[in-house]
Amino acid sequence: MGENDSLAEFLAVAVDAAKMAGEIIRKGFYLKKNVEHKGQVDLVTETDKACEDVISQHLKRHFPNHKFIGEETSAAFGTAELTDQPTWIVDPLDGTTNFVHGFPFVCVSIGLTIAKVPTVGVVYNPIIDELFTGILGQGAFLNGKRIKASSETELVKSLLATEIGTKRDKSTVDATTNRINSLLFKVRSLRMSGSCALNLCGIACGRLDLFYELEFGGPWDVAGGAVIVQEAGGLVFDPSGEDFDIMSRRVAATNGYLKDIFVDALREAE
Amino acid sequence: MGENDSLAEFLAVAVDAAKMAGEIIRKGFYLKKNVEHKGQVDLVTETDKACEDVISQHLKRHFPNHKFIGEETSAAFGTAELTDQPTWIVDPLDGTTNFVHGFPFVCVSIGLTIAKVPTVGVVYNPIIDELFTGILGQGAFLNGKRIKASSETELVKSLLATEIGTKRDKSTVDATTNRINSLLFKVRSLRMSGSCALNLCGIACGRLDLFYELEFGGPWDVAGGAVIVQEAGGLVFDPSGEDFDIMSRRVAATNGYLKDIFVDALREAE
Repeated sequence: MGENDSLAEFLAVAVDAAKMAGEIIRKGFYLKKNVEHKGQVDLVTETDKACEDVISQHLKRHFPNHKFIGEETSAAFGTAELTDQPTWIVDPLDGTTNFVHGFPFVCVSIGLTIAKVPTVGVVYNPIIDELFTGILGQGAFLNGKRIKASSETELVKSLLATEIGTKRDKSTVDATTNRINSLLFKVRSLRMSGSCALNLCGIACGRLDLFYELEFGGPWDVAGGAVIVQEAGGLVFDPSGEDFDIMSRRVAATNGYLKDIFVDALREAE
Repeated sequence: MGENDSLAEFLAVAVDAAKMAGEIIRKGFYLKKNVEHKGQVDLVTETDKACEDVISQHLKRHFPNHKFIGEETSAAFGTAELTDQPTWIVDPLDGTTNFVHGFPFVCVSIGLTIAKVPTVGVVYNPIIDELFTGILGQGAFLNGKRIKASSETELVKSLLATEIGTKRDKSTVDATTNRINSLLFKVRSLRMSGSCALNLCGIACGRLDLFYELEFGGPWDVAGGAVIVQEAGGLVFDPSGEDFDIMSRRVAATNGYLKDIFVDALREAE
């Protein structure tokens, strides 16, 4: 079996896992409205755990020698160190706040790194049934159709996405809104939809031109989306302009043309 | 024919009009990626006009004595004065920037005022196929299923939506980000999805708890959504807390519980 066959198999198994978890999310999403608030919190935790269990069991059954880093497991035991071994990095439910409120931007994110390089990515939104996939060197797809990042070359015509995160201390909030203030003078408009993985996929399919997020949860938010962006002709990097570090909890992404002027704009926004 | 029969007929005709326009939007949405930038701008204008023509012709054929205020017509001839006559107020394509970029939050918004009161509302997102409807005194619906606003009573657990608008002078942008800064200390999180009408419907179906927008385009952005929010048990009002004025280009909306504390929070954010 050649390497491409393995990668295709890795993707197929990851897609199956994402669909199984997606079914659990979809049920919870529509059930949620009928449970009381405490029940809602429990439902999130239960859904998150049930999804991670289904995904990790499916992946481990097929690839018993692969490593696994999951958001829920990491919350309980700390985030494992990323090694050169093939490693599945999984967010079983990205967009938790959206899930609680019924806002339809929620997804499963599954990424595989090999030698620390994002190599296979699956991001699945089960509510609006959008499945984003990518394999290193083999393109990116939405529901099986090839996607590409936008061809926009001017900031002023670009659609920017970011998220305000969960920290609410004064210095973080001030830095967040000052950054947005500075960027608003340069871009066309701003979107916040509440899912890091789906923002990356928005770059990949050209719905968004620019995205950055700081201090998000962990590598599971970006491991699936990173390869999808790159295979769609987009760029993933540190907001400083340095190389992307999957473990750094900082990410920026653009189409193939806007990186340099976006990095300048981000620098001027600090 | 009783009044309720008329209202039901008004709604049925408006739904037909929204579906016809939605079909035009859907075609343009998926076509768009293949046209050059100048072509994109033309496509927006063409789609906007084609949708307004289809809607106005359909409404005028069925209700020749009703008045009509449409975004495109108003852009060309100025916004007509709102009278007590039954008046259809139409945004043929809300979320123009989203349409250009392929971000799937676009909609047709059709509202009917009688004696200046929003009485029938239709908001249709043809990309994710969500049809929101409402008739004064008869409830609000999403794809035929009754919807209701959320039951959240605390700001800190509430999901807020707003938009940054199109003005980019320093005093407007500073006021916008200062307001957001102040609100971020009080709410759970913030969404910006680029459609005023869909934000109102988000309040109506409980996906969002709080929404405000200032200096949007005109009454067509809110005429359809206002009655849908109210019929879902939500509240529509001026951000100052005063009564909603459909012609004022200012709106706030909440579920049935959060208005007073949201008005306080907005006041403290000025």
